[in-house]
Amino acid sequence: MPRLKDFRPIALLTDFGHTDAFAGILKGVVLSIHPQARILDLCHGVSPQDIGHGAHLLDSALEWFPKGTIFCTVVDPGVGTSRRALLVETTDYFLVGPDNGVLWPAASRNRIRRVIHLTRSQFFLSSVSPTFHGRDIFAPVAAHLSAGIDPGAFGPEISGLSRFSFPEPEPFNSGLILGIRHIDTFGNICLNLTLERFRPFAEQGFLMRVNQAAISRYCETYAAAPEKDPFVIAGSAGFVEIAVKNGHAASRLDVRKQDTGVTVTIEPKK
Amino acid sequence: MPRLKDFRPIALLTDFGHTDAFAGILKGVVLSIHPQARILDLCHGVSPQDIGHGAHLLDSALEWFPKGTIFCTVVDPGVGTSRRALLVETTDYFLVGPDNGVLWPAASRNRIRRVIHLTRSQFFLSSVSPTFHGRDIFAPVAAHLSAGIDPGAFGPEISGLSRFSFPEPEPFNSGLILGIRHIDTFGNICLNLTLERFRPFAEQGFLMRVNQAAISRYCETYAAAPEKDPFVIAGSAGFVEIAVKNGHAASRLDVRKQDTGVTVTIEPKK
Amino acid sequence: MPRLKDFRPIALLTDFGHTDAFAGILKGVVLSIHPQARILDLCHGVSPQDIGHGAHLLDSALEWFPKGTIFCTVVDPGVGTSRRALLVETTDYFLVGPDNGVLWPAASRNRIRRVIHLTRSQFFLSSVSPTFHGRDIFAPVAAHLSAGIDPGAFGPEISGLSRFSFPEPEPFNSGLILGIRHIDTFGNICLNLTLERFRPFAEQGFLMRVNQAAISRYCETYAAAPEKDPFVIAGSAGFVEIAVKNGHAASRLDVRKQDTGVTVTIEPKK
Repeated sequence: MPRLKDFRPIALLTDFGHTDAFAGILKGVVLSIHPQARILDLCHGVSPQDIGHGAHLLDSALEWFPKGTIFCTVVDPGVGTSRRALLVETTDYFLVGPDNGVLWPAASRNRIRRVIHLTRSQFFLSSVSPTFHGRDIFAPVAAHLSAGIDPGAFGPEISGLSRFSFPEPEPFNSGLILGIRHIDTFGNICLNLTLERFRPFAEQGFLMRVNQAAISRYCETYAAAPEKDPFVIAGSAGFVEIAVKNGHAASRLDVRKQDTGVTVTIEPKK
Repeated sequence: MPRLKDFRPIALLTDFGHTDAFAGILKGVVLSIHPQARILDLCHGVSPQDIGHGAHLLDSALEWFPKGTIFCTVVDPGVGTSRRALLVETTDYFLVGPDNGVLWPAASRNRIRRVIHLTRSQFFLSSVSPTFHGRDIFAPVAAHLSAGIDPGAFGPEISGLSRFSFPEPEPFNSGLILGIRHIDTFGNICLNLTLERFRPFAEQGFLMRVNQAAISRYCETYAAAPEKDPFVIAGSAGFVEIAVKNGHAASRLDVRKQDTGVTVTIEPKK
Repeated sequence: MPRLKDFRPIALLTDFGHTDAFAGILKGVVLSIHPQARILDLCHGVSPQDIGHGAHLLDSALEWFPKGTIFCTVVDPGVGTSRRALLVETTDYFLVGPDNGVLWPAASRNRIRRVIHLTRSQFFLSSVSPTFHGRDIFAPVAAHLSAGIDPGAFGPEISGLSRFSFPEPEPFNSGLILGIRHIDTFGNICLNLTLERFRPFAEQGFLMRVNQAAISRYCETYAAAPEKDPFVIAGSAGFVEIAVKNGHAASRLDVRKQDTGVTVTIEPKK
């Protein structure tokens, strides 16, 4: 049954930044193979080689794209090693990228239909460098795929892909120790606490601790929040976030994503 | 009379930055609704929640786009409050965004044909979050509009929209006290002085003061300017700018846009 | 013979950055002239007015784009002076931009078919400012060209264009003094040493010196490299690079591109 076949835009997600030609080169390669391809920049500002950052962005963006979208994901610290190059076909999407976990959270949101190990070099550029598989493998495969090639043509089906999981909340007294998934442009601290899991805390009141700070206010909107004091809000990606109205929560609370010394806890209000 | 109907590209202007998926998500939402939509990134680097910055960029970019362009503008500190969501149809363009003033300078450049309060939720995503109307309201409306839906379908016509005005020059001795509209990538300081209003100063000579610095040179091109010394030039957006050849005027003069302590004055040369 | 005629996407390369409307305005101008134009962002993060940076990015990206691509290149410190505006037609591509050297490395990679001095103002915007030829000349010409206008229509053919050359390696004892072409997003230091010229050093062993550091290891992949220590790798643009696995070589070695005090040398191993 030819699903996901008629409209296959390509969304590019990379850690290539904005001062190099790398991201542009991916577009050139795609157009060279499939001049009619529909190419979208999803984000090129993933922190260099930060698989977690890439995984979070892919996971949070996926469902907002039309069915059939090809996500060409290049966050690839293991380029040139034996890590596999993959095409994951889910019920609704195609994910192309390295088998290092970056595809996992997004892939596992959908039903995975098949995982293809990209081995058929006739779909790669004629010369494959050991350092830039985005250009030489992933963009060409995305281009051929967008032109309607069947996923099975790119290589053998394999049984699984590397997993990457954000740390789950862990028990702590009567509450939880939380982790930080992401800090966004506005300084919001996105926690690993889903809205579902947060609900009982919201209902009965809670005390959240971040470094030395205590937060006990939950607001449905920024408008309802006080000026300056950090509060908790339901983030648009489905996770609880710490925010400061017209401010930058991460700076205010002196939290950096990579800062392993930060402990965030939440407990029911006493 | 079916005006502005046949070609309606969507230009995206946001404060979403370049390290998140937010801007990419807007594109996914648009394509999900209107796969043939023509989407352009105008700018995603508006300072977070800075309505003046967004208003300046929209105002300075508008006229260079083809008639019928839809500007999907998301600088929205009041998201989730009672601030209205708007579609402004001018003689030549469509402006979609929050009613917080960000649309005003651009809207008022053209003749405003009608202002629509976006209330018809059948054109929104099925679930509207309190924190991301760019995704849930503005991008969907822009997508439907680009597909040819009549503006009147999106809600009732209302009589006006919130205004935002850059401070106007004020009298000062025989001259003016000026304000700063914008500091650009090159460090040029864009003032609130139109070229028309600057003309008599240019003709008779002038003395401009910025903090401790005095500037009395006007140059038509960068080439005609001296090395290193700040000078005044006619900016491409229609306003007077202070520039430094092969340098960064704002750094040189220690001026920051948000710095309320800076006083800029211009007087005729004595 | 009508070559390069049927598919002419426009790739934009500028130093306009990401916090202004300048790059967006180019797109608006192109669409106003040629609504069907295919527009791609190659890069807008060239360091302000840095001709070498722009030249390097254009040169490294060119060959990955489809034949017929129009590179609209705006790194233009001499805007408004007598520097010429050019269209260079090579065997495979069209390069539009200022005659300040930025086009040279890319142009000279291909066979140059003709160099056109852009003088026919009917292809410009109706009013040409002295400070923004990207908007007023280069984008309009790229748009008309993408619509199929013959290069010869834009002005007279001239005999050459301004050259820009990255410094070549120079003899040093039994080796070479090297220069820095570029420092990329990942901190890799791209040297002016081609892979061909590096080959004998790789075969017999080498000692590279950068400031106080000594590097003697060449790795084919990042995976094969040690943690933390700088090593030499074949860059994807055809030049030797200094890298640090999961790190930032330029920071580690305290090298900045503009730092003229840095000396990089390579000698055969003794």
